[in-house]
Amino acid sequence: MISIKKPTLVLNSGICHENIRAMASKAAEKDVIFRPHFKTHQSAKIGEWFRAEEVTAITVSSVSMAQYFATHGWRDITVAFPVNLLEIDEINQLAAKIQLNLLIESVETACFLSSELKTSCGYFIKIDTGYHRTGIAVSNIALIDTVLKNADSNLLNFKGFLTHSGNAYHAKDHDELKRIQQFTAENLLRLKKHFKTQFPDLLISIGDTPTCSQLPIPEGINEIRPGNFVFFDVMQFALGSCRMEDIAVALVCPVVAMHPNRQEAVIYGGAIHLSKEHTFLDPDPQPIYGLAVVWNNTTWEPDRLLGKVRSLSQEHGIIALTQEGCNLKPGDLVAILPVHSCLTANLMRSYVTENGIVISTMNQ
Amino acid sequence: MISIKKPTLVLNSGICHENIRAMASKAAEKDVIFRPHFKTHQSAKIGEWFRAEEVTAITVSSVSMAQYFATHGWRDITVAFPVNLLEIDEINQLAAKIQLNLLIESVETACFLSSELKTSCGYFIKIDTGYHRTGIAVSNIALIDTVLKNADSNLLNFKGFLTHSGNAYHAKDHDELKRIQQFTAENLLRLKKHFKTQFPDLLISIGDTPTCSQLPIPEGINEIRPGNFVFFDVMQFALGSCRMEDIAVALVCPVVAMHPNRQEAVIYGGAIHLSKEHTFLDPDPQPIYGLAVVWNNTTWEPDRLLGKVRSLSQEHGIIALTQEGCNLKPGDLVAILPVHSCLTANLMRSYVTENGIVISTMNQ
Repeated sequence: MISIKKPTLVLNSGICHENIRAMASKAAEKDVIFRPHFKTHQSAKIGEWFRAEEVTAITVSSVSMAQYFATHGWRDITVAFPVNLLEIDEINQLAAKIQLNLLIESVETACFLSSELKTSCGYFIKIDTGYHRTGIAVSNIALIDTVLKNADSNLLNFKGFLTHSGNAYHAKDHDELKRIQQFTAENLLRLKKHFKTQFPDLLISIGDTPTCSQLPIPEGINEIRPGNFVFFDVMQFALGSCRMEDIAVALVCPVVAMHPNRQEAVIYGGAIHLSKEHTFLDPDPQPIYGLAVVWNNTTWEPDRLLGKVRSLSQEHGIIALTQEGCNLKPGDLVAILPVHSCLTANLMRSYVTENGIVISTMNQ
Repeated sequence: MISIKKPTLVLNSGICHENIRAMASKAAEKDVIFRPHFKTHQSAKIGEWFRAEEVTAITVSSVSMAQYFATHGWRDITVAFPVNLLEIDEINQLAAKIQLNLLIESVETACFLSSELKTSCGYFIKIDTGYHRTGIAVSNIALIDTVLKNADSNLLNFKGFLTHSGNAYHAKDHDELKRIQQFTAENLLRLKKHFKTQFPDLLISIGDTPTCSQLPIPEGINEIRPGNFVFFDVMQFALGSCRMEDIAVALVCPVVAMHPNRQEAVIYGGAIHLSKEHTFLDPDPQPIYGLAVVWNNTTWEPDRLLGKVRSLSQEHGIIALTQEGCNLKPGDLVAILPVHSCLTANLMRSYVTENGIVISTMNQ
């Protein structure tokens, strides 16, 4: 039994360990490098749980996060974000200590690093395979060639091509998800073939939780970098990446007001705890900001739905209640399964396990 | 000139002081209590700027925030949030030290406090005047009567009726905003009249930035509690509450990639910096997550628009560029005027002023 008085992010370490083991096994079976993205949990302690599964290489989304995990013993880190040129000093300091891999996607960045790097660094070229957030279009071999030519420093070691299929989050069904993965794999393998003679050891790195969870790893892929699977969340459930019982975190919140006439509860738990990320759960056409389930003072019960979080302001959450939810009263606690666990974890900055142990993150 | 390498929330203290002075003057002219909401800035230092304008009473949104500001010398604090019964120990400790005012809106909470309070506390009854987030419907005099009867402890001092017209944020135009304010004021004054004999000193407390900024304070109102006006933001600009040049904070972010073919820039600055709050700016039908303007290494230039933030992931922001924005390159800095400064400030946890001074918040 955990004593909770205000919004608290509870982590079920058993589920979390199982999520880590499942993805590590999947990678091991296909003999691909498992380089999990640590931006979801941002925690040295949870990082140790990956180490126990023989993970030695990780992905992060900022130089600051690379510094934090390097301090906690990680020696092979890819910053999966276009290089922030303004942090060149921090990059040089880190690269002197660990195997640091950067992402390059422009001639400007290639030239800058060629001139400013003081220590050996790996780099991937960031490829856009359809998400259109950033990266070089997978068809643009001319630009890839130019970037490779401009990264002409002995300190810059080309590692391969990297993509994030963020468009997997917009797949309407399982078939579309398969088509997205197939397009990504085929096009990256075509690139690999094209550059294979010049760079015989080049790697193809992919990573997003929907395809990595739901589909077999395609042949020819060398590395996967999913992150969210460590906790999963309601968005991944909506996408078909996990079952409700695979979600490893819940925000436990006090009920502060009941409105039986409109079947709503108000909780202490808002945008500064959950984030304003929303998702949709078929066939409900309205957006949801979390799912409220029973909290039994030790753990949550994902099969006992109390309601849907319908709106969030800074510290208020409004829950549209199920019949069971209508029995709540001020002073009760409910567990909110978050829509996007990465953003909730970032806001909450620490976890409490089912045994009451506090696990900190880099932001605490 | 401030040295910035990664997303940094810059505060223009001159604009901020001016925003504080303007609202303090408006309250003083009407001789109403100015009890600003400190949830926007969450900073002891910025609190001092209010004290310089003779503010002595404040509003907060949590017991934790009340504890923080009590530690920093504030002696009259209203927690404008339905009482979290689970924090009764903290409430008792605080009430022993300061004038603490709570919000009651149910018989359960009235009974609980009557039995569990150990020190004298003020309380307001939270009234719903049309926002329908929480509170007792302004027409429900029977329930208000029952709550008053159940708050039957000598330690519970009834202060008055309090509302937050959050529906002001959904007003389609200035006329609708006026109607919302008029409805709120008329109905609260009717309540006041009804209970005046029983409680001759009862106060009527309203507070939201759109009506407090845009409209005169209605006759008969005793207290205003706006918060966001201290910084304003793009949402308030869209609502007509401020000019672009009244926005006092901007998130300064490095450009990390350019996509001239689709007139987009990628910045280091995402949902964990700005929050996923969006708004709309007429006549553009697409949601925006911030406005990118020129950063000249000392301050931002609100009249030089570089683009609109069109989407955010965890650390990436995507900007749809104006013609001037197309001249950006990786390593440049841009200033993002946030959509919702409260959430951005909460995420960033500190400010840097135009003189390079770091101002901390309760979360740092």
